Amino acid sequence: MSIALNNSRVAHRMGDIQPFYVMDILARARELEAQGKSIVHMEIGEPDFLTPQPIINAGVKAIATGSMFYTPALGLPALRSAIAGFYRDRYNLDLSPSRIIITPGSSGALLLTMGVLLNPGDQVLMADPGYPCNRHFVRFTEGQAVGVPVDASTGYQLTPELIDQHWTPQTVAVMLASPSNPTGTLIPPETLRAIAELVKSRGGKLIVDEIYHGLVYEGEAATALAISDELFVINSFSKYFGMTGWRLGWLVAPDDYEPVIDKLAQNIFLAPSTPAQYAALAAFTPETREILEDRRQQFKARRDYLLPALRELGFDIPVTPQGAFYLYAGCNKFTDDSFTFARDLLENAGVAITPGLDFGSHLPSRHVRFAYTTSLDNLKIGVNRLKQLNLGR
Amino acid sequence: MSIALNNSRVAHRMGDIQPFYVMDILARARELEAQGKSIVHMEIGEPDFLTPQPIINAGVKAIATGSMFYTPALGLPALRSAIAGFYRDRYNLDLSPSRIIITPGSSGALLLTMGVLLNPGDQVLMADPGYPCNRHFVRFTEGQAVGVPVDASTGYQLTPELIDQHWTPQTVAVMLASPSNPTGTLIPPETLRAIAELVKSRGGKLIVDEIYHGLVYEGEAATALAISDELFVINSFSKYFGMTGWRLGWLVAPDDYEPVIDKLAQNIFLAPSTPAQYAALAAFTPETREILEDRRQQFKARRDYLLPALRELGFDIPVTPQGAFYLYAGCNKFTDDSFTFARDLLENAGVAITPGLDFGSHLPSRHVRFAYTTSLDNLKIGVNRLKQLNLGR
Repeated sequence: MSIALNNSRVAHRMGDIQPFYVMDILARARELEAQGKSIVHMEIGEPDFLTPQPIINAGVKAIATGSMFYTPALGLPALRSAIAGFYRDRYNLDLSPSRIIITPGSSGALLLTMGVLLNPGDQVLMADPGYPCNRHFVRFTEGQAVGVPVDASTGYQLTPELIDQHWTPQTVAVMLASPSNPTGTLIPPETLRAIAELVKSRGGKLIVDEIYHGLVYEGEAATALAISDELFVINSFSKYFGMTGWRLGWLVAPDDYEPVIDKLAQNIFLAPSTPAQYAALAAFTPETREILEDRRQQFKARRDYLLPALRELGFDIPVTPQGAFYLYAGCNKFTDDSFTFARDLLENAGVAITPGLDFGSHLPSRHVRFAYTTSLDNLKIGVNRLKQLNLGR
Repeated sequence: MSIALNNSRVAHRMGDIQPFYVMDILARARELEAQGKSIVHMEIGEPDFLTPQPIINAGVKAIATGSMFYTPALGLPALRSAIAGFYRDRYNLDLSPSRIIITPGSSGALLLTMGVLLNPGDQVLMADPGYPCNRHFVRFTEGQAVGVPVDASTGYQLTPELIDQHWTPQTVAVMLASPSNPTGTLIPPETLRAIAELVKSRGGKLIVDEIYHGLVYEGEAATALAISDELFVINSFSKYFGMTGWRLGWLVAPDDYEPVIDKLAQNIFLAPSTPAQYAALAAFTPETREILEDRRQQFKARRDYLLPALRELGFDIPVTPQGAFYLYAGCNKFTDDSFTFARDLLENAGVAITPGLDFGSHLPSRHVRFAYTTSLDNLKIGVNRLKQLNLGR
């Protein structure tokens, strides 16, 4: 016989943590596909490429031994060193492996960072629109995410002026993302440096999301780590390295934070995934790099096709995105309700995109996000379908 | 040129979150091993067995496809169904797969549970001694873990009387573990039912850690899910299923919590590990079960050797542990400082054990934990070394 407990208890934080609205679009897209409809997926923030073969091979080889025990909480020493080598090769930067912390996805890196930095009520400034989980990690640890409205005039990025304007006595940190999700824009190195200096002068901490590094189509993004040893940089094996489902990322922290991050990681994760870490050891080989560079060229070709095509259709994309695999597009010409608009495109054209609602509260109903995480051929099909819709109010 | 930010900021919670003290013992043990010394490891809470071959095979097969994309945030539907099947087969219990949430280790299940239940200052009652991370998950989410001192008289478990005695207006939940780490004891079904009724009558939530289920040496542990649909049950692929490094666990939640847990899991994890989930699909086959049952017999043989041997040496183990792979032993006859005692055993006898300090603040200096996660032969070597020490004050 079952007894029923009173089940009404839900923590207040859950009232402020939103689901991914794109999941509604995705679920409906899957329904339509199950009915035999063809859907072009431009809503998904996950590349369509398989994990590169050398990484697969390394993973398979390690797993086949059966020896899948816990690693240290901060990760395999060999992987921490390999990442230090990556910073040396790619950015000409010497980092102590002790500053490199392997995490369960960049999600784990964000949780550790907010967990060691934020007291209840502490404010973190971040761009709106931005990656929604960032504000939810802050809320999860009882901090307060302060979305700063940004627009094309600053490349959808924070500036020293905006930070200065929104800083309060409760502000303890600033979070940047370069390239940004959903806008694909970078922060110029001189702006990054000016922001680092401002945040330092206020006694705050700077957190920089670099998970789309490597997916930059004009030159290379500069890492914030070249500017200061005192900031928190989030990175990931998911996007550039093609390892989404493996759930592996890393955090570069100031050196004196290692012990406090270690004890938090021990307690909330025990350790990152052992199979993923052994697989990732093959992520920095010349063979893998060649595959990844080829993919970067493919992403660039997709962007170079999709961007002018969407502009021609009437979408407003005032800043050319330099990285990631997203186009953040104003849809003002077509609608003032981007969620309904996205639903309509799905139902009427079989094109799935993400409504602005997922990225914050600054004009979300006037924007949508297109992800070029599907093939050039698919993108062309999608654009043609949109053309045939005769969009416009 | 680097600029230096002020790096003194550490959240208050980190002052209350302790590292695993056993890591000091482990690090010193590794040092001694590097010097050529032989160490018997009885400090490690991780079985010495490889991941079972059928699970390895399933993992390798899935990974070899390269198709390691994100799964849904709550896990692969096939794995949620397989776990429902496991409850049907082993416990004769029908659970809707919608209540089964796949998590990054049981750590992930604990984080989700505390995250959706606790507001700042909310109290959670739990046994002291107990698994240290439990109180740290509560602290992480700004709740307050209240350790209730338990001893042999209640089998080191909470009772309705103890819960009643420690309940305050701030109490919102009770956490149990059966079998318990570090004591290996179970909660009798009638006590579990009485606790569930009491917690319900107070409007609280009951959380039950069942991660050592399957590793029980007299009969089978009853799952708390047979008593009520309204509690949170934590489980794991790590211990019984031999998948520690894969980082995969699950949570069974009341049905109406699925949406709120889904949005939290989306935001803080995105999804559990894809390779681990495909591997775990092979965890419930007859072939795997046979391997695991053989291992259970080996654990039983280890316990049946180690328990009387330690008692004979003068360790105080008043309650026969029925499960897990731990013996929680009073060392009052030898020391009133179990940490120094553990260091001494390591230095003088090459035997590594865990000091009580890791399990709470109720008489930690009078207790140590022995883990029988190493072979019977190793355990015998360890016991012989202890014999030769002529322990005693």
